[in-house]
Formats: sequence, C-alpha cells, structure tokens
Amino acid sequence: MNTWGNKIKISIFGESHGGGIGVVLDGIPSGLELDTEFIKAEMTRRAPGRDNLSTPRKEADEVEILSGVFDGKTSGTPICAVIRNTNTRSKDYSPNILRPGHADFTGFAKYGKAHDFRGGGHFSGRITAGLVFAGAVAKLCLKESGITVGSHVKKIHTVSEDSFSDLSLTPELLSEISQKGFPVIDDSVGEKMKAEILAASADKNSVGGIIECAVLGVKPGIGSPFFASLESRISSLIFSVPAVKGIEFGCGFDFADMYGFDANDQFETDGKEIYTKTNHNGGINGGISNGMPIMFTTVIKPTPSIAKPQSTVDLEKMENTTLEITGRHDPCIVQRAAVVIESAAALAILDALYD
Amino acid sequence: MNTWGNKIKISIFGESHGGGIGVVLDGIPSGLELDTEFIKAEMTRRAPGRDNLSTPRKEADEVEILSGVFDGKTSGTPICAVIRNTNTRSKDYSPNILRPGHADFTGFAKYGKAHDFRGGGHFSGRITAGLVFAGAVAKLCLKESGITVGSHVKKIHTVSEDSFSDLSLTPELLSEISQKGFPVIDDSVGEKMKAEILAASADKNSVGGIIECAVLGVKPGIGSPFFASLESRISSLIFSVPAVKGIEFGCGFDFADMYGFDANDQFETDGKEIYTKTNHNGGINGGISNGMPIMFTTVIKPTPSIAKPQSTVDLEKMENTTLEITGRHDPCIVQRAAVVIESAAALAILDALYD
Amino acid sequence: MNTWGNKIKISIFGESHGGGIGVVLDGIPSGLELDTEFIKAEMTRRAPGRDNLSTPRKEADEVEILSGVFDGKTSGTPICAVIRNTNTRSKDYSPNILRPGHADFTGFAKYGKAHDFRGGGHFSGRITAGLVFAGAVAKLCLKESGITVGSHVKKIHTVSEDSFSDLSLTPELLSEISQKGFPVIDDSVGEKMKAEILAASADKNSVGGIIECAVLGVKPGIGSPFFASLESRISSLIFSVPAVKGIEFGCGFDFADMYGFDANDQFETDGKEIYTKTNHNGGINGGISNGMPIMFTTVIKPTPSIAKPQSTVDLEKMENTTLEITGRHDPCIVQRAAVVIESAAALAILDALYD
Amino acid sequence: MNTWGNKIKISIFGESHGGGIGVVLDGIPSGLELDTEFIKAEMTRRAPGRDNLSTPRKEADEVEILSGVFDGKTSGTPICAVIRNTNTRSKDYSPNILRPGHADFTGFAKYGKAHDFRGGGHFSGRITAGLVFAGAVAKLCLKESGITVGSHVKKIHTVSEDSFSDLSLTPELLSEISQKGFPVIDDSVGEKMKAEILAASADKNSVGGIIECAVLGVKPGIGSPFFASLESRISSLIFSVPAVKGIEFGCGFDFADMYGFDANDQFETDGKEIYTKTNHNGGINGGISNGMPIMFTTVIKPTPSIAKPQSTVDLEKMENTTLEITGRHDPCIVQRAAVVIESAAALAILDALYD
Repeated sequence: MNTWGNKIKISIFGESHGGGIGVVLDGIPSGLELDTEFIKAEMTRRAPGRDNLSTPRKEADEVEILSGVFDGKTSGTPICAVIRNTNTRSKDYSPNILRPGHADFTGFAKYGKAHDFRGGGHFSGRITAGLVFAGAVAKLCLKESGITVGSHVKKIHTVSEDSFSDLSLTPELLSEISQKGFPVIDDSVGEKMKAEILAASADKNSVGGIIECAVLGVKPGIGSPFFASLESRISSLIFSVPAVKGIEFGCGFDFADMYGFDANDQFETDGKEIYTKTNHNGGINGGISNGMPIMFTTVIKPTPSIAKPQSTVDLEKMENTTLEITGRHDPCIVQRAAVVIESAAALAILDALYD
Repeated sequence: MNTWGNKIKISIFGESHGGGIGVVLDGIPSGLELDTEFIKAEMTRRAPGRDNLSTPRKEADEVEILSGVFDGKTSGTPICAVIRNTNTRSKDYSPNILRPGHADFTGFAKYGKAHDFRGGGHFSGRITAGLVFAGAVAKLCLKESGITVGSHVKKIHTVSEDSFSDLSLTPELLSEISQKGFPVIDDSVGEKMKAEILAASADKNSVGGIIECAVLGVKPGIGSPFFASLESRISSLIFSVPAVKGIEFGCGFDFADMYGFDANDQFETDGKEIYTKTNHNGGINGGISNGMPIMFTTVIKPTPSIAKPQSTVDLEKMENTTLEITGRHDPCIVQRAAVVIESAAALAILDALYD
Repeated sequence: MNTWGNKIKISIFGESHGGGIGVVLDGIPSGLELDTEFIKAEMTRRAPGRDNLSTPRKEADEVEILSGVFDGKTSGTPICAVIRNTNTRSKDYSPNILRPGHADFTGFAKYGKAHDFRGGGHFSGRITAGLVFAGAVAKLCLKESGITVGSHVKKIHTVSEDSFSDLSLTPELLSEISQKGFPVIDDSVGEKMKAEILAASADKNSVGGIIECAVLGVKPGIGSPFFASLESRISSLIFSVPAVKGIEFGCGFDFADMYGFDANDQFETDGKEIYTKTNHNGGINGGISNGMPIMFTTVIKPTPSIAKPQSTVDLEKMENTTLEITGRHDPCIVQRAAVVIESAAALAILDALYD
Repeated sequence: MNTWGNKIKISIFGESHGGGIGVVLDGIPSGLELDTEFIKAEMTRRAPGRDNLSTPRKEADEVEILSGVFDGKTSGTPICAVIRNTNTRSKDYSPNILRPGHADFTGFAKYGKAHDFRGGGHFSGRITAGLVFAGAVAKLCLKESGITVGSHVKKIHTVSEDSFSDLSLTPELLSEISQKGFPVIDDSVGEKMKAEILAASADKNSVGGIIECAVLGVKPGIGSPFFASLESRISSLIFSVPAVKGIEFGCGFDFADMYGFDANDQFETDGKEIYTKTNHNGGINGGISNGMPIMFTTVIKPTPSIAKPQSTVDLEKMENTTLEITGRHDPCIVQRAAVVIESAAALAILDALYD
C-alpha cells in the first residue's frame, strides 16, 4: 500500500504521464509556518532539466497546496500537494518493448494489461517529487527541534570524495552543500564526477553512485526497538526510492572486518552529558538514537535508460528483440537523488520524534 | 510499535530476563498443517548453547502454542507462541554501568528508570526467537506456493566463501545448508571461520560477518511500488534484528562501480516465459519480483559483549569508569543469526504474496 | 489520522473554503472500467443546491481524477480525485463566535489559532464528497462480485416510512430509490417528510432523521471476528460522517426487548445452501456475513446551522453573546447523507471482501 | 486483523477451549505503577460463575504478565498477558450442529473445516478477558490524566433505570457502581432486573439489555475529525465485543425527533472556561471532545445459548434438525459485559489522548 508511517502518514500518488502526481501528508502539527521559498528550493534540487547532466524533460514541478494550510500556516489537517504533469510525450513509450532495468515487466506482471506503462507510470522517479515536498515540510518541523538533515554525493562511478565521518559536521556545512548544483563537499572532486557522467553519456551509457546522509541534533532516546527501529523506518522509506539497492548505517558492511572492541562505541561523560567517543554505529543503538549524528550511506544504481542497444522481449509477440532507446536520458540521477534521500530520512526521523 | 505487516500482522513481546518472550502472528490462512518438527529445528538453529562458539546460557527455547492451532492445523485466528525464560541470572547485570555497543544507554534514554536493563531487556537478541517461530510458520506457508528461503554465512571477519550468485541455486542446496551446525556452502571454509571466531574469543574479543539470503520460486508480480516494495518490507524487518547494520539487494553497493549497460538485466524469452539473462537486481524491479531468485546480503556487527576492558560511564554516579564483562559470551552470533534473517525474509515475502 | 482501511486505504483531505478537497484511494484492482456517468450521478446525489431543501451554495462537485486511471480503467495504483472549491464566501464566517452543534470550539481546542474555521474547515460535511467518490468506485468493484448497496430515508423528524426489513429487497428496488431526488420507498411519505423540513426551515429551525442501509449479495464468510468485524469496520467509517450519532445492526436497540429465542435467527437448509429463517442479526454473526442482507440503521442529527438566535461565546473576548446565523442553510441533510452512508458501507464491505 | 489502534496497539488472541487466551498491549508509557489489585478486581467483574445469573463454568481468569513489566512498573515495551483455559469441556460441543445466534455457521464459512468450533472458539465472549486486562491498564493510565470511565446496566429486557444523563455524575459514583455485583445506580431496580433474568432462565430462555457508559475528565480537544473521530474509535472497539449490536452517542437515535435548536448544545463562559449548557452531543463535536462527559449507550443482544429447542442444520449431513442445548448457560451477560464496554471505551480514549 502506498501509505507509510505511524505518527505521520504519507500517501503518495501519480503516474509519470497522467494528470498529475502528489502526496497527502497527515500528522503535521498546526501552526507551522510554511517557508514556501525553502520548499521551492528543495523541489528544484530534484527537478531535471537544470543542466547538461539530466534529461531535457523540463519539469517546473510547481506545487499546488490544496489543503491543510491556512494563512501560510499548517492547520493540523492533512496537507495535499499536487504537481501537474506538463511536459509529457507519451508516444515515446511502447507498451510492448520491455526496458531492461525498469519496472516495465514487473508492472505488467502485477497489474496486467491495465498497467500504465508510459514513462514507467507509477514507478517513475518523478513520483518522488511528492516525497520531496513532504520531506521539505518534515525538515521545517525538524528545524523547530534543532534537527538538520543533509547529504553529499560520496561517489560517482569510480570517483569518490571523503566521508562526512572524517569531518566535524555542522548544520552550516550541510546547508551549504544542499545549495550546490552538484552536492559535494569538495567541488574539485565534483568536477571529476561530472566528467565521469558526461563520459558515460557520450558512450550512450549511464553511471550510479553513493550518497551519504547525516542527521544532526537528534537527542538520545528517539526511535524504538524492533519493527519501529530508526533503521527500519529509514530503510523502508529509502527503499521506496526507485534505484536504491542498498543501505548501511555507521560502519555498515565494514563492521564485518572489525573486532568487537573496535566496533563498540565506548562511552564517556563530562558529568553532565553522556557521549560516545566514536560513532561507528551511526548514532543508533537498539534502533534508538544515542545523541551522535545519525549516519547512513545508500547506493543508487546506474540509470536504466541508456541509448546503447539492449536485448529484450516484445511482450505482445513474445519474441526476442533489440531495444534502442532514443532521445536524451539522464546519464546519472545520483546528484538529483540526494534531496530525495534526505527527504526520506527527514520523514522517518519526524515519525520517530512524534512517538 | 512492535507490530509489523500489512496482510499478515506480527506482534513481538518479551524481555531477556522476564517471564517469557513470544509472538502473535495473525493472517495465516486456516488449514495449514503445522510441522512441529520443522519448527523445532528452526528454533534450534537460533538457540545458543549448542557448541563452543556461543554463550553457555542454554535455552531450551521450547515453544508453547497458546492459540490459533486446532488438531495440528492452523485455525485462521491469531497464533500466539510463548517461550519461557528459564536460565536467567539477573544479578549478572548492573543497571548503572552502560555496556558499549548495546542499547543500555538508549534504553534508559527512551524508557527512563523503568527500563528493564537485565540482559538487554527487550533489546536482547533473544527476542528474535519469536521472529524465528513466526518465520518457520511463514516458511510452511511459502512452501505451499513453491517458495524456499535459505541463507549461508558468506563471511566471518576476514574469511569469506563464494556467493550464492556464483552458483546455480536449488531448494535442495538451501535445505542442506540449513541443516548444518555452521551454515556455509563449503565446510572447509566454515572450519576457517570457526577458527577465526575462537581466536577472537581467546583474545576476549568478538567478530561479525555477512549473511547472504536467497528466496527461490517467487513468481513475477509479487510486491508493490514505493512504500510496500519488497526491499522496503524486507529491510524494515531485517533491521528489526539486533546487530544488523546494512542490507543490499542484488549487486548492492557494487552497482556504484558499474555502467548502466552492465547493471541492467536484459530480457529474453523462449516464447512461453520471460527471463532476465542476469540477476544483478536481485530478482526485484520497481519493488516487485521479476521471477529470478530474490537475493540480498546483510551485515551483522561483532557481538558487543566482550571481556576486554572498555571505557564507559556509571549512570548513577555520572562518572567515567571501566567495564570488564565477566562470564562467557558469544564471540560471534552470525551463524545463529542466519535463521533469523531467513525468518524475516520469509515473513516479508509472505506479506507481499497475500496482497 | 485521516487514513482508513486494511486491504484498501482511503486518505481524505480538504477544507470547506480551501483550494479543494479530495481523496486518495489505494488497493483497487487494476482493469476496473470506471463508469464516469455513475460516479457523476453519485456525486450529484450528495451535492447541495439541487432543490429548495438545501443550502443555495451550488457546488458543481466536478471530480478531476489525477492518477490511477489509464484509458478509462483503473491501473491498480492509488487513485487521487480532487474536487475544487468554487463557490466559497469566507467572509460569512467569524473565527470568534462559536456556532453551537458545530466543531468550531473543538477545532480551536485541538488545533489552536491555526484552525481553519471557515465553513467548518476540515469538519465540513463537504469533505464527505471525497468519500462519495471513493464509495462510487467501491460500488463498481462490488458490482463485479454481485453486491449492491442501497438505502432510504426511513424517518424525518416525526414522519417515518416502512423498514426495508418488512419488504423483500431487490437490487432493482435499491437502484430505483437511489435515483429519486428524495430517496424513500413511498413517495407520498416522502412528500410529508419534505413538508416537515420546509416547516422547520420556515421556523428558522432544522430537522434530522434516520437512514436505513442494506447490502445485498454478500456471501457467507466475509469479515472477521473482533477488531475487524463487519460492524467495527462499517461503524468506524459511518461515524466519520459528520452528524451521525448512532448506528444499529439488525434489530439493534430493539434486541433489549427481545428474548433469546426470538432474537436468534434459526437455520434451515434446502440441502444445498444454509439460510437463516429470519434476519434479526442484520446478516452478521461474530463479525462475519451469514449470507443474509446486511442491514443497519443510522441517525443523522438535525443540522446545527439554524437562523434562530442561540447563546454562545465570543472566543476572543471570552464573553457570552448571541449568534444569529444569516443567509440560508440546509434545514435538513438526511436526504443528501443517504449516498454518503452507502459509500461508507460500500468501502467497509470492499475492505472485508479483499481480506 | 486482530490488531487495533493508532497510538496504542492491541493484539488479541485465543480460543475458548485452546491452551489460553490473552492480549499484547503496546504503547503504554514506562513507569506506570501496575495496581494488580485493581486489575484483578476488573477481571473478576467479567468472569462468570460468581452468582446464579451466569454459567457455572468457573474461570479463575488468573492473569500472568509475561512481559513489559519490571519491578511492578511498566517498562515501556509490549505487555503480554496470558489467561489459561482451565475449566474446558470440549465434548459439550459438536462441530456439525450450528447454534443459532452464534458464529458457528459464519466461522465455518470463513475458516472452513479447520475452524475451532469448541465453545465458539475465537468468537467466544471469553476472549474479551484480554480486552478487560488491557482496559484495566488503560484505566490506570487515564487516571493519571484525571479521567474516569464507568457504566451501569440501564436496562434488562423490560426493566430499566434512570440514565446517567439525568444525574450529576461524579467519579465517586462511577467507582461505587463498578464495585457492585450487579452494576446499577438503584439496587432496587437491580433486583427487578435479576428477577427478569431468572424468569427467562426458568423458561429456558435468555435476555439482553442496554449499558450506558460515561467518561469523565476528558479535556476539550481530544480526538480527530473523520476516520479517527472519538465515535469511530470507540465504536470500532465496542463492536469487537460479541453480542453488541448498536451504539449511540449523546441523544443518539432520539436526535431524529428533535429540532436543531434543541439538539444544539449552546455555549456559555464564566470568563475562564467555555462550557455547553446541555450535553446532547455526548461530549463530542466533530469527533473531538468538548470537555463535557463523553456519554454513549450500547445494546447487548440476548445470549444466544438457550435451552429451548431450536431449528437448525446439521452441517455434515446438510439436513434440517433440532438443537437442544443442554447444561446451564448464561441467561444474561449484560451485567458482566459492563466492564468490557468500559474497557473498550478506556482503550479508545487512551489512544486518542496519546495523539
């Protein structure tokens, strides 16, 4: 079901080439001033068409808020935000030729002939625009509790930059990165990443990468054991984002190479507060925040839409065939996915905060 | 909240040193023959005390089914299974000295002074016994649909064996591995892993590792886009398991190094069925099964309970101190966690199958 | 939270005087032909402004479907329907003078100063238009399973007509009543009801009444014991409808006057099917359908908006004052509420049917 | 699904003649002192076998708390309570002869041959013992917020007493009534009610009645519009109680006879607080508490188990037959159901309070 959450509820809807997409967000307290400039900026971070790295489908992604806001403030009732689909060319899509790496085949397997295949339909990355809107509202809520969410592109194909964990993170740094067209710590590495993307594009190919996300300011005691652990909540939302195929918290898969003594975060106190000396566990023990930055890393697979010819099947004829996708497509979506990942994290943290 | 699921509902309860632990499992169809030998075998796979690799707390983990079963068959109503705590020695635990890597600090942060700290309380790995019971029932349901879940220990510290993905997997192989005391494909590698564990133990330390899990026989079209994607459902349950800190599907984090052309699974048909030539996406596209084996890998961090002295804090005195955990503890739980991971996967797949 | 359902999910949103209202409906199978004429007719049954019995706020209630429908058929993904607010005059409403019988006071108590008070905001009966859209889709789904939902106005103030239970009900009769401007079995009684409404209106007052609802064609075995009983599902939705203050199934409150022997529905069989000789239990035993018509009755309180002067409080000044509501208002909404009650019933039955 | 709640979660399990019944209650804050004497007293109020009005099946209903309680206080984690079935005689029950008014037929229709028919299985009123335990804990939580829940038997068959609404209600009065063996305001009327029950019993018949419930001390602003309205939450739980067939809030069905002017509760203020002059709406407007007592009335149908011969069907032979239930049975459960109704109300209010 496309509804998520315990204390907040998110319902997402829409298809790439239907009338519009959107989200209903419930559980947001009344009286929150909606910073529309901030929301607009967040939407822009996700929107394609901003530079030569992305598909030329220029989507304004203008949000219309239908409910739940009164005189610029949340009224406490469900907030419905709608984004119209404007720049759609359905004829680009054939219902019969399955695009490898996409959900064309599984969509038909689940929904049958009624599946809206145009541009991936409900499976399109475009649907995440609703998540970004909801995430922006969540970030405004979190801000009131002194919580900041940020991320950077840690790796594009073979080019990577330092981890957040090597730095002393501040809300200011996260904010600064979020305002960059290509969200990295070190812009010189960012240029190399862009070159990698353009090279793949020139070869009719695509690349993926890794995003590192941090949440600062979460006090100890937020979250739950078991099914509503912070990791469970965050991961269930993160894997809602198309193209995400992995997530790790703190040292993640590197834990396998460590000894217990090195993996444990030992405690110390100044007599007033309790800290961990290290943050190998990414700010979470037993599903609950320990006061350190919440840190996770997620991988985005290379965009499946590539111009290189691929073997596939004609669903109607049930014959093998070759697909050559024409027109320009995103050679990489990692840089645009960063804000989506942050949004998912913000919503998951907010849901836990309201427990 | 400790309730999970859409089409099935799991409620888990219990503390390490309370009266007992257990699970309520709802949504299982009526008329399923409960293979109690199988359930018992699954419980034994998780139970400690079987060999010199685990804690000597010998827990019989005998399951009493209180409801939902009549004349050996499920009656369609909620199944409650209870496992008594027998071998408890609460005096081993101090409420004041926080154990690094455990949820002692976060437990007190969330629940305050009423937190049941004994043996980790509700955060104890022991609570997963309820998950294993529920998972065993789920596996029996899945069997009726021709679906098999299995796993192996792919890595312990620095020692690893081949991936499932390099083999042609069969239900028989998965079943064979599940019956091993140390669940690996290659027993000679398994011996090296055990040696690694014992070496860590001898050094008052612990190790973690990686488990690879496979689900065979899932037809195309199971799952959902977005919040109820197979990855979302599986990961939210998997991260309920204490010590799990990462999960990846198919090529997972390796996707970052691949080009789109190599990452995509191209299609082919024999005129009757549609297949993918490769399985980089781990059997899932757009959150929905594509008919290939569902493959994921998950990391278990080293057991936090180690005998090596560690810096920590006395919560009552709010002073820095040193903790030396006495008694024997699990130097590694990866081999016992395999059945827990499989259980989580089985429950998630069943939930999606009943959509 | 404004999300309802187990197997289907409904999220409702909107305020009387905001941009628009609507609903997201998830869980509807793919491939259902959307009969837009039927949906339009259902919307019209609820809309005010059709005759001299209702408020002159003429709302077209034109539905725009944004998602989940492709080529006239449901695509299996969430259906979002939006209805614009057009004929709004916010200046009619004061934030300070609490209207008795309305949710003005409780709205401010819950949401504080940010409460959207205009026309009752999210508490407005207008919000049920989304429920009627969702109910119309549900009725189309139920039709495929041979299930029909219908109702009639059984009582307006002191004027009442026969019960459904005294008749041999057919889908045709239910359909016929639904097409009437004033949905009663006997139009001559309907005329008396209308006269009662107009008399109340002339006296600056209002009246309420009773609606009887029937669901035909539900096979035995639909529903669940306890929390997901048919009665629980239906009543939780019915009490979402503003102004509903009571519901009873079958003989309902009359059961208190009966002996067990007379209350029980005795069984008989023709060798093929099992029937009950009577239907005192309204087609439901133990929360589950028994194959007889599902029958319930619900009471709608008199419309709170009346022109008669009423004692109330000025919220800002915290002083007692008198309210005289100007302009014309619905002297009765029972006849328009019938389709809302049916919609709630249809959604609840559909949710149970998909178990 | 047998799980209920938004902010608290209740999972109920068990069959009349299985190993045991019980409940898992999640979402209760840590640190609540569990008054075991109070809980025991509440359990006793529901238990049969206390006097000559009820079935001689004497059930101790001793509660074992397996989890969620540590040193006499709630620890914040799920509370599992189990009640063993002791006094069971399964041979009293035949799987083939359907008992009219019970869920035998619908149970088989839903679950097929695997249905646990013994004593009604999961449909037995006995299962409400778990609800009473959970309700007792909820009452202890509510007490901390100054909220009291109480009820009385307003009517048994033709004998009725005054309504709460005619009195000035106090927590003390509610507490006093709850301690009576037969919970009425006026014991002399109670004696007439008992006589009515015994007369029905002597005639191999049974009677039902009406329970009026009141919740005192709920501040304005608790609850939600639409699907999570107080009426929706309360009614969905109340209809989980077997034999309940109707519920009404405030004036309920009498609203149909009233004019709007008389139905509205007009406001007044003393300059500090806002009150309604009357309480026709039962303390709820728009699904949200208005600070007045929350009042509702619910009908319990006559116990279906009667000794009088009844027409029924032999399920195996598919033939008409006559059933004569032997042994003694409850001629009335209304007096024992009062605590169950209160429990459901307490849980619903608590769920809303934690929003």
